[in-house]
Amino acid sequence: MTPPPLADPAAHYAGRPVLVTGGLGFIGSNLARRLADLGARVLVVDSLIPEYGGNPANLSGYDDRVRVNIADVRGHGIDYLVRGHDVIFNLAGQVSHIDSMQNPFTDLDINCRAQLSILEACRKGNPGAKLVYASTRQIYGTADYLPLDERHPVHPTDVNGINKMAGEWYHILYNNVYGLRACSLRLTNTYGPRMLVKHSRQTALGWFVRQAIDDHEIEIWGDGRQRRDYTYVDDVVEAFVRAGMTEAVNGRVVNLGGRAPIDHLELIQTLIDVAGTGRYRVIPFPPDRKAIDIGDVYSSYALAHELLGWEPVVALRDGLARTVAFYRAHRDAYWS
Amino acid sequence: MTPPPLADPAAHYAGRPVLVTGGLGFIGSNLARRLADLGARVLVVDSLIPEYGGNPANLSGYDDRVRVNIADVRGHGIDYLVRGHDVIFNLAGQVSHIDSMQNPFTDLDINCRAQLSILEACRKGNPGAKLVYASTRQIYGTADYLPLDERHPVHPTDVNGINKMAGEWYHILYNNVYGLRACSLRLTNTYGPRMLVKHSRQTALGWFVRQAIDDHEIEIWGDGRQRRDYTYVDDVVEAFVRAGMTEAVNGRVVNLGGRAPIDHLELIQTLIDVAGTGRYRVIPFPPDRKAIDIGDVYSSYALAHELLGWEPVVALRDGLARTVAFYRAHRDAYWS
Repeated sequence: MTPPPLADPAAHYAGRPVLVTGGLGFIGSNLARRLADLGARVLVVDSLIPEYGGNPANLSGYDDRVRVNIADVRGHGIDYLVRGHDVIFNLAGQVSHIDSMQNPFTDLDINCRAQLSILEACRKGNPGAKLVYASTRQIYGTADYLPLDERHPVHPTDVNGINKMAGEWYHILYNNVYGLRACSLRLTNTYGPRMLVKHSRQTALGWFVRQAIDDHEIEIWGDGRQRRDYTYVDDVVEAFVRAGMTEAVNGRVVNLGGRAPIDHLELIQTLIDVAGTGRYRVIPFPPDRKAIDIGDVYSSYALAHELLGWEPVVALRDGLARTVAFYRAHRDAYWS
Repeated sequence: MTPPPLADPAAHYAGRPVLVTGGLGFIGSNLARRLADLGARVLVVDSLIPEYGGNPANLSGYDDRVRVNIADVRGHGIDYLVRGHDVIFNLAGQVSHIDSMQNPFTDLDINCRAQLSILEACRKGNPGAKLVYASTRQIYGTADYLPLDERHPVHPTDVNGINKMAGEWYHILYNNVYGLRACSLRLTNTYGPRMLVKHSRQTALGWFVRQAIDDHEIEIWGDGRQRRDYTYVDDVVEAFVRAGMTEAVNGRVVNLGGRAPIDHLELIQTLIDVAGTGRYRVIPFPPDRKAIDIGDVYSSYALAHELLGWEPVVALRDGLARTVAFYRAHRDAYWS
């Protein structure tokens, strides 16, 4: 299907006040930088919870173009912070599947309660706002069929998936009932510069990148044949930028997806080849991860193409090369 | 399909320690009474939150056969209370759709946080427990097709529907990951003795019954042609009893449903005919209710029949007659 013509993003965002929650995190910071480049007046809210993805270095070089407000979306202050922003990119969240099983109440507070707080704050203080929520294809759980489309039944396999599902639906509900303009993008595995590489609890690929650069041995769980899809962060940022200026996505849940699925083994081999360093070995699944693993999963982005004219353009090999180059250049800000 | 042979409930429950959360409420109290009649050692936990459905009179006559522990499932104590019970019927919940929109955080605490607390308490202190969760077909939202089966996409239309969806999935998750034996019954409109008739915020039908008995005028919103299904509480109790003794439902979401859908107008006319008192008129939808109304909805109970041998047996006219007779006999305990 031919996508609709897209208005000029720079014309749309120039001078426009926008808010990015979780804006010191991986995707949030890349989005904030892009929005600043487009001329938007960007406010970033982030809690900088230790162990999470927020890192002040992620906005390095943008100190004079992006305002940063450190605050926890679970607490007070959000009522004030949402006001006056035309578009709210809502990326604040707890994203670790394993942490959600070990600390389900923390995940609930961040991914449910705080989302309700943001939406209630908008309903009362900024009812004209447009919101773009960062959701996850984890909601689908194990695949009944592939690729996953938005009609696929949901059967989340961890607390994080359940709570993200609720957070997403709050957005759709407030769109439908209260007239806020909100949509939800269901992200698949996203990778690229500024992803969390301090530990392996949030993204496996970030940890693999670090290990490859350090010339360490990467452990692949199971047989390495689970197929997943990956989107480079610039592509994901482009989807947020488009969703923030497209009325046709209001009230909709929209998948993002990678260019083509690839199995873990091939992913790691490509990474090591691109990096020129690193090794791997295949080991059995750790029991606590096996319990919440979901096998082959990858998404269709047909609806994103239809509504936003979006498609992933950065090839995996190219994206991995850019990622490795970024971390080699900025190791000090990300390794410790 | 021929249902499986059912073991004798009295043989299964006799002497068995069981817990009913929300057991002073409408369905919970009817279930607790039935379980006591089957010889079970029943502990009821209820918070008796004002405005909710809990009422000490609901266990009238069972003082010596059902133990009652007043406690809020949101608070401490649940760790202790779940211990030692073979079956936990988990009916504690906030059930008002309109309250969930006005107080979304209260709904979140009761329908999400407290459910996680109960499951965490079982995981740590009673991992062999079997849980039966009271869910709702409200999760489906507006119908893509009818009757609703368990494969129907979920698109909840109020905060309550979203949070009940999360609460349900916590149960399925803990079944799948931690080996608790948990299932979820998605109830449709339930009616009968001990339903809340103090106000109209939880069930429309309870309020209609009261108005009919008081010979008042019943207001029907819209054109009265919305079709719904209704199950008499004894039928719902039977489903819980069966689910609590059936291993085949573990990890499953199972609809209950009424014998046949009926529109609001015919429902009210039947009620007034049975009661011999009451009148009605049709008025436009109040805006706050219209926003969360879901039109025609009714459920298929085919899976419940397959797994539990369950089907609704009480005809609407008969169930309404029993309900009216109950409230005429016990008006003092329910009207104020």
